Amino acid sequence: MDIIEKRLLTTNWFTELRNKICQEFEKIEQEYATANPIKFSYKKWTRPGGGGGEMGMMKGKVFEKVGVNISTVHGEFSEEAQKKIPGCENNPNFWASGISLVAHMHSPLVPAIHLNTRFINTTKNWFGGGTDLNPAIEDKDDIEKFHQTLKVCCDKYNLAYYPKYKKWCDEYFFIKHRNVSRGAGGIFYDYLDSGSFTNDFAFTQDVGKSFLQIYPELIRKHMHRKYSEADKHEQLIKRGLYAEFNLLYDRGTKFGLMTEGNVEAILMSLPPLAKWS
Amino acid sequence: MDIIEKRLLTTNWFTELRNKICQEFEKIEQEYATANPIKFSYKKWTRPGGGGGEMGMMKGKVFEKVGVNISTVHGEFSEEAQKKIPGCENNPNFWASGISLVAHMHSPLVPAIHLNTRFINTTKNWFGGGTDLNPAIEDKDDIEKFHQTLKVCCDKYNLAYYPKYKKWCDEYFFIKHRNVSRGAGGIFYDYLDSGSFTNDFAFTQDVGKSFLQIYPELIRKHMHRKYSEADKHEQLIKRGLYAEFNLLYDRGTKFGLMTEGNVEAILMSLPPLAKWS
Repeated sequence: MDIIEKRLLTTNWFTELRNKICQEFEKIEQEYATANPIKFSYKKWTRPGGGGGEMGMMKGKVFEKVGVNISTVHGEFSEEAQKKIPGCENNPNFWASGISLVAHMHSPLVPAIHLNTRFINTTKNWFGGGTDLNPAIEDKDDIEKFHQTLKVCCDKYNLAYYPKYKKWCDEYFFIKHRNVSRGAGGIFYDYLDSGSFTNDFAFTQDVGKSFLQIYPELIRKHMHRKYSEADKHEQLIKRGLYAEFNLLYDRGTKFGLMTEGNVEAILMSLPPLAKWS
Repeated sequence: MDIIEKRLLTTNWFTELRNKICQEFEKIEQEYATANPIKFSYKKWTRPGGGGGEMGMMKGKVFEKVGVNISTVHGEFSEEAQKKIPGCENNPNFWASGISLVAHMHSPLVPAIHLNTRFINTTKNWFGGGTDLNPAIEDKDDIEKFHQTLKVCCDKYNLAYYPKYKKWCDEYFFIKHRNVSRGAGGIFYDYLDSGSFTNDFAFTQDVGKSFLQIYPELIRKHMHRKYSEADKHEQLIKRGLYAEFNLLYDRGTKFGLMTEGNVEAILMSLPPLAKWS
């Protein structure tokens, strides 16, 4: 399979996954309040250096703010970026496609979530991504089920994946200066090139499917439950930490701003409302 | 005058200024609501590598959240920091003392503000600092008066200061990726060593005095005015930008985290509540 075909397959998948997710999220909004159900609105953007993407955003009654973005960009890395990204030491050309999602929910009992998967080409080609749960009020069963779903997904491909990617996630989403985790973990992987594009792509697709299997279930489980003002306060404080992490540490944010991606799309991850004590 | 005496004079001044500011802010709270006036609470901290500081924080009826911090720290810079800070290429020792203040107000009609002045010693010694106004709803007269006060302060020392430091402020507080300014400007100066410690210290003291002259006046002018929900929304969006700037770009934040300063004190600048659309 040549690289052009791989690019076509992956971009098609990211679009398909986006469509499935947005459809499911709209369905949840409709279940919650059948009158005037809210839909995603979409906005296309192009990148001056090459490529572009589409932002999807919904502000509903269950989803306080959810952004689902797909993008396929290409061009030349800046010298600064060249030093940091594998396979472009002597060749600045890159191509990247992916999906990125952040959901901030009205109810503090419904966990926030982040999903991102991508296929990147320099002189090397690799997959990366992951998903992690960000509950304000932790529910042990939710967290266990979330991790279990990801374990099943990983174990199909390689028994080493789950422990490795879970650990990577814990390390990546750790807010060093606060000495706390951003959330309840999940998986995080990068530079995945096992030698089989077919396997790595199937795994990346499975991460998206696992997300679709578990997250809507968690939303439906909690979305009708009553919550207190103290719960909401807790959620807003957690969101402050979330914003702090994304602006201070997140590689996706830095990669996006560094490659002159669409600022609105990159910063869509920021919470609709957040508190710092 | 030897360096020990200079250090004593500057740290004493930063403490004196802190006391004057906190006293004035408490007075404003008392004027606004005479019953149960709110006071600052103080918290001392020590830095493992040497020195420490004191945080002052008040959550009142006029001030939604105001932090006034003083600190005097010393030790050795990390190799990373050594490359970035003048005068320590071949000697990692540093000493730094300063005051830092951020006020986020309940009323969106009262501008938020930031003040910071500092005296830093490596193998070189210099003053730095500034103050800038961050209104949610811009009032032309406020902004003019604020800039005028700073101009009078600067002009006493050097006619080149005001245009230079105003420009530096505009450039420094510009949020590149959004293509907007964080606020309505003010002055920003750094590496100030005119050859006369006496003059530079007097100027730095005058920046603090000018702050005390103008900001309480602006608060009193607006604090009793009625505002709309739309005004409050505008303020929360501006605060999102404020947090974005501080976490992505602010040198003080980076310097603090890099030198293992007190995280609570460093991030006290973050707004009590903020919105991202």
